[in-house]
Amino acid sequence: MNIRIDRLMDDLAAINAIGRLEGGGNRRRALSPEDMEGRALLLDRMQAAGLETRVDAAGNVFGRLESDHGVNDGTQPAVLIGSHIDTIERGGRFDGVLGVFGALECLRTIGESGVARKKPIEVVAFTDEEERFIGFLGSYALVGSVGYDDIKDCVDHNGTRLYDAMQRAGLDPHRIADAAVDPADYCAFLELHIEQGSVLEREGKIIGVVDGVKGNFRWGVTITGQTDHAGAPLTGRKDAFSAFHDVAARMIAFRNKHGDDDSTLTIGRVLMEPNIETAQPGRVEFSVDFRSSSVGFLRRADSTLSSVLQELTENGGYTVDRHQILVEDPVEFDRGIRPAIERSAEKRGYPWRAMPSGAGHDAQVIGRHIPSAMIFVPSVDGRSHCPEEFTRTPDIEAGVNVLLDTALSLAIGEGT
Amino acid sequence: MNIRIDRLMDDLAAINAIGRLEGGGNRRRALSPEDMEGRALLLDRMQAAGLETRVDAAGNVFGRLESDHGVNDGTQPAVLIGSHIDTIERGGRFDGVLGVFGALECLRTIGESGVARKKPIEVVAFTDEEERFIGFLGSYALVGSVGYDDIKDCVDHNGTRLYDAMQRAGLDPHRIADAAVDPADYCAFLELHIEQGSVLEREGKIIGVVDGVKGNFRWGVTITGQTDHAGAPLTGRKDAFSAFHDVAARMIAFRNKHGDDDSTLTIGRVLMEPNIETAQPGRVEFSVDFRSSSVGFLRRADSTLSSVLQELTENGGYTVDRHQILVEDPVEFDRGIRPAIERSAEKRGYPWRAMPSGAGHDAQVIGRHIPSAMIFVPSVDGRSHCPEEFTRTPDIEAGVNVLLDTALSLAIGEGT
Repeated sequence: MNIRIDRLMDDLAAINAIGRLEGGGNRRRALSPEDMEGRALLLDRMQAAGLETRVDAAGNVFGRLESDHGVNDGTQPAVLIGSHIDTIERGGRFDGVLGVFGALECLRTIGESGVARKKPIEVVAFTDEEERFIGFLGSYALVGSVGYDDIKDCVDHNGTRLYDAMQRAGLDPHRIADAAVDPADYCAFLELHIEQGSVLEREGKIIGVVDGVKGNFRWGVTITGQTDHAGAPLTGRKDAFSAFHDVAARMIAFRNKHGDDDSTLTIGRVLMEPNIETAQPGRVEFSVDFRSSSVGFLRRADSTLSSVLQELTENGGYTVDRHQILVEDPVEFDRGIRPAIERSAEKRGYPWRAMPSGAGHDAQVIGRHIPSAMIFVPSVDGRSHCPEEFTRTPDIEAGVNVLLDTALSLAIGEGT
Repeated sequence: MNIRIDRLMDDLAAINAIGRLEGGGNRRRALSPEDMEGRALLLDRMQAAGLETRVDAAGNVFGRLESDHGVNDGTQPAVLIGSHIDTIERGGRFDGVLGVFGALECLRTIGESGVARKKPIEVVAFTDEEERFIGFLGSYALVGSVGYDDIKDCVDHNGTRLYDAMQRAGLDPHRIADAAVDPADYCAFLELHIEQGSVLEREGKIIGVVDGVKGNFRWGVTITGQTDHAGAPLTGRKDAFSAFHDVAARMIAFRNKHGDDDSTLTIGRVLMEPNIETAQPGRVEFSVDFRSSSVGFLRRADSTLSSVLQELTENGGYTVDRHQILVEDPVEFDRGIRPAIERSAEKRGYPWRAMPSGAGHDAQVIGRHIPSAMIFVPSVDGRSHCPEEFTRTPDIEAGVNVLLDTALSLAIGEGT
């Protein structure tokens, strides 16, 4: 059985026509008008494929194919497959949507085949994977980790309230906890995604069998010194850039000393005030993002950052504010499901390798409650989260066929 | 003879009522409506004081007191005293305006005294000292360093054209070169300014006799790497922040190794793209500002930055664009005028010291063509270019009295 790549590419073209930006890339921030238009398209295509659709209290969109073509005892947990359709501010073309529309194409293919299977299969598109408000909001809600108190005061970078955005999307923020499912209702979750890096491409592999997602500790730090003229003497300066530079240098040194090749540090966001050439900044706000498969490394990064900032406060006349944006321990994917992915790649003759994911995915949230696994396909030049992100069509076809085989093997009762 | 501090504080309150911002500070960007309102106030007060006013082709505002109360042979060069009334985006209360309205108060005092003097005295307020378009535009124009070709394509940070701003201010951009004077028409230029730093305050001095202005080499640098996901592995990253951090580290190390206490490095402006927590920036734009009394240090800083950036281009897969924003060699102030300032401070019993200026001033431009000197008064906590900038009233009074004595000694023919 094979998916039909023409249908899938048509779906992907349709979703990428929504929120397209001048100069390349797409913007479909979670619960924005563009995201709502994307959801409408998805629901429309799900219904056209004969799936039973629903939207839960967190805005997660589902399309279900019942196990009623042959073997169906009505008591079986479902196989869940999907990803997300929201993007960052200027996102790439396949990040997220490949996993959702790829899953939809699998269900169309399976539905049309009439093959006997014990278990229902559901496509899902999760809300706000890309952290407009709360990263992985939809998957957290599905596993019962989000209540009204967690969301009521949440705003995006522009000050828009999640509460208001949910109401505009026809969702009742007070009822978000209703999105929680009984994990026993699902036997597996599968997510197909582009690799966010260039490991597969460099090694000439087509399929990545993701063995886990690295842990991710992320902080926002604000250092306040004193704005002063660039002509002021050295003595007496409380230049917040100097303090920031020193903190960054020490965190880079920590990574180089204690991190393995899989352990990364990224400083992606820096905002200085007043940010003019002729003044020492009085305030620097920045992010620190550590990822690693080693939880020990992450905890040590956390305590190192704490002590570096503590020292700065004690010695340098600076004030420091630090808040944890994200704490995700590493997750290992299900050892029962991974062999099914490997078997499919082997059978179809696609070169594959096991690998960790450095990027966070809904599967890491779901994976703590429901047996989960992920499939990666290569990104050209390893690019992602940018307009240049691209995956070649044969690689897309390969990835979705492996998703098809794996989902089907789970639905007909093999493997788990 | 003493100035009248009550009149001066009234003038300063009036100018600071223009362009006042919510949350403190003032915005009177050069040639903006607020700046024009400030010029109107200044012209009004000059005329009320009986000065002969004029505005030159660069928008510099003059008020002249002729040497006609007694000795006047009609052939004497004038004494020029003044500063600027424009501010940065959120400027302090006395930066610039003290030197202009202080000079006006000196002319009122001298005019009322009827004291005999050989030379005319002029107050001047220079256009765009604070670099909305071109830093020191007015003083450069006065000394004949600016023509139409230098200004025709100039825009501010918001894309407003200097050409349009001049036209709206009633100035003909095509005639800017007409602002040039014959340097022989002036025997001296004096500028009173707040200290932009805390040297005077720390040492308990009231008067700074500025012996020169440090040189200032300033660059804008853009490093372009590749935007990529924060989850991408280390191998293959072209993280523009990492490259920037390394360049900054090497320039800081250069300063620490080769710079004396008077040599400063400021990185005041950093803009990253896309500037989000979850992506390595593909592009970092930043400013590098070196100031020193040693021209050798500045030239070495220039060549070090060049070679660091060159290395980055050659080894790291980055592209680098670098442009020089400002090159000002150090300027030494006139050794004939400085003793007159010292004598005044001594006579009046104000503790004083000789010192360099780290900040740039119109006097450094004028000083290359006309004998010049500067007087500093203390800033509380050394603050400037911020709403907290403040100078105590007795210190203002002291500074303007020293300006009065010095200008008068030059006008009656002592000292030079």
